[in-house]
Amino acid sequence: MATLLILGAGMMGTALAVPLFDRGHDVRLVGTHLDDDIVASLKQSSVHPKLKLEIPRGIRPFFHHELARAAEGVELWALGVSSAGITWATERLAPHVRRDTPVFMITKGLVLEGQKLLTLPDVVRSGLPDDVRSAVHPAAVAGPCIAGELARRVPTCVVLAGRDKVALTKIADAIRGPYYHPFPTTDVVGAEVSAALKNAYAMGIGFAAGLHEKAGGTPGSVAMHNLESATMAQAVLEMRRIVAHLGGDPDTVSGLAGVGDLDVTTNGGRTGRFGRFLGLGLTRDEAIGAMEGATLECLEILAVMEAAFRGGALGSLDERDLPLLHHMFAVALHGAPVRLPLERFFAA
Amino acid sequence: MATLLILGAGMMGTALAVPLFDRGHDVRLVGTHLDDDIVASLKQSSVHPKLKLEIPRGIRPFFHHELARAAEGVELWALGVSSAGITWATERLAPHVRRDTPVFMITKGLVLEGQKLLTLPDVVRSGLPDDVRSAVHPAAVAGPCIAGELARRVPTCVVLAGRDKVALTKIADAIRGPYYHPFPTTDVVGAEVSAALKNAYAMGIGFAAGLHEKAGGTPGSVAMHNLESATMAQAVLEMRRIVAHLGGDPDTVSGLAGVGDLDVTTNGGRTGRFGRFLGLGLTRDEAIGAMEGATLECLEILAVMEAAFRGGALGSLDERDLPLLHHMFAVALHGAPVRLPLERFFAA
Repeated sequence: MATLLILGAGMMGTALAVPLFDRGHDVRLVGTHLDDDIVASLKQSSVHPKLKLEIPRGIRPFFHHELARAAEGVELWALGVSSAGITWATERLAPHVRRDTPVFMITKGLVLEGQKLLTLPDVVRSGLPDDVRSAVHPAAVAGPCIAGELARRVPTCVVLAGRDKVALTKIADAIRGPYYHPFPTTDVVGAEVSAALKNAYAMGIGFAAGLHEKAGGTPGSVAMHNLESATMAQAVLEMRRIVAHLGGDPDTVSGLAGVGDLDVTTNGGRTGRFGRFLGLGLTRDEAIGAMEGATLECLEILAVMEAAFRGGALGSLDERDLPLLHHMFAVALHGAPVRLPLERFFAA
Repeated sequence: MATLLILGAGMMGTALAVPLFDRGHDVRLVGTHLDDDIVASLKQSSVHPKLKLEIPRGIRPFFHHELARAAEGVELWALGVSSAGITWATERLAPHVRRDTPVFMITKGLVLEGQKLLTLPDVVRSGLPDDVRSAVHPAAVAGPCIAGELARRVPTCVVLAGRDKVALTKIADAIRGPYYHPFPTTDVVGAEVSAALKNAYAMGIGFAAGLHEKAGGTPGSVAMHNLESATMAQAVLEMRRIVAHLGGDPDTVSGLAGVGDLDVTTNGGRTGRFGRFLGLGLTRDEAIGAMEGATLECLEILAVMEAAFRGGALGSLDERDLPLLHHMFAVALHGAPVRLPLERFFAA
């Protein structure tokens, strides 16, 4: 049993608290300044308004201004903020983290710094104090994990990616439980690039459903699953190419972090719905409007990837290698209509 | 424009006729002795009773006893029978095929011969007359293709796998059209083993839906997608191991023939429904009964794979390498209850 602090009380941060609490840990869940309503609700009734669920009362909620108190004696840190909040979270973490305190995160994303694409574990690490940085290699969770399911104890397998094997073992042993299965890997690039890209590619896989409805549908259960699954296979091929180019292991894409997460993301969720709207023929702006303010990670990661291309961070990879990604740039960033370039898919 | 003969007028054989006819070919669709009702209906009204669709009138239907007439001047043969009919189809094909007539098939399966697992292209080839066999390497189609969708002209991408590059190009050029995209590959083992195994693994991926219902479901849209997608990732990992062991390219599994077909098969269809019944807690025999006589390719391929293991055809691969496959043997062949061995998944 250990003392754990999760920073970020959104759906995913809170969901993570459940298996950790069930595992017997002292779990402290600290909201960001955007989570005040959630924390107030948790303090009052243990009900998380977004998860629409009562979480175990033993999970201790804190407001962001209570962080110093929550951080006392913490032995393991988890960052559960959204990608937009990672700098804020690192700044909060920095004064408290120690050389012997492992850190992991469930935040997903990529950051373009000059000509280099950075994974979030590297971004967080660079924000730690010098004396701590030499000892702490933050790890990251990737793989198929819908927050509402984990919070309801649905069996879940995830990849735990980090560069420090000793820390990985320590974290995995601390968080593993009867329904939460972390599988350690040192392929940080493979896992994190997969985790970030799947949000973009899930949008493209969603095009088929929209195209189907636009065409008036067809009788019976027939849809456009053939097209959807072909797009998924092309997505995996392109993700493998990008990961290999960035120095990761392409086989990580074929596992939990790539195929697994892509499958769960397309099985439901807002990214697929956004892709469906685009397939239906809504313009980019109409589709964004139809999402009623939902966060669209796919647009963030597509913008990062397009800038990475323009800046040379993807080197020799060009449009012929990544026709689906480039089509998604055109549709989601520049308002082109959906027309999946199948004839350019699966080129050797 | 060429003269093509498709042997087998079931759902998939007939669906294939549609893009070939649209491409401008003279397409002759010959039923097996099990397809008499279908052929009669096609001759009368062009309606395929199983596809529940009127196909183009220019596709010419023939009863099996009319094969000799249908075979006159045929320049490209396609076998569209089920795996159980492959020997019958080869015997019908043998007297007519010539050294310069390419052959391809949409039939999927594996055959255990002694200690060796054979793909269907090799099985068909071994049944051809000696003088033809030296010149004809049958090709095979794999990848995400629901018959009812292809027959309704849903954009479809498939792999066309064969050992003879010249024949592959000839076949691909003949069948490619605006909504049917064949991608040639010489990795016959990778494509065909994927095509066969996906039927078994789609069953295992279906377990999660049944387990969810058995547990009483949960409010909202929450299901067991986390578990489903983790099982899919493990399926891809095991299929890659089996393909590599049999001398194929594991990356073929990560493409259309593996991930793509697995995705389309789990998105609907009878194999997933059968897995769901097993997950719900029905015994093997109850689940078979609940399928009301539907062909269960998953049971055929699982039986072949178990025999292959026992006979040594999979060499050094053991239960630790393939825990999901072995669990599926236990459940679907020997009546054990579903209990996905997640803790043994994703072992290095």
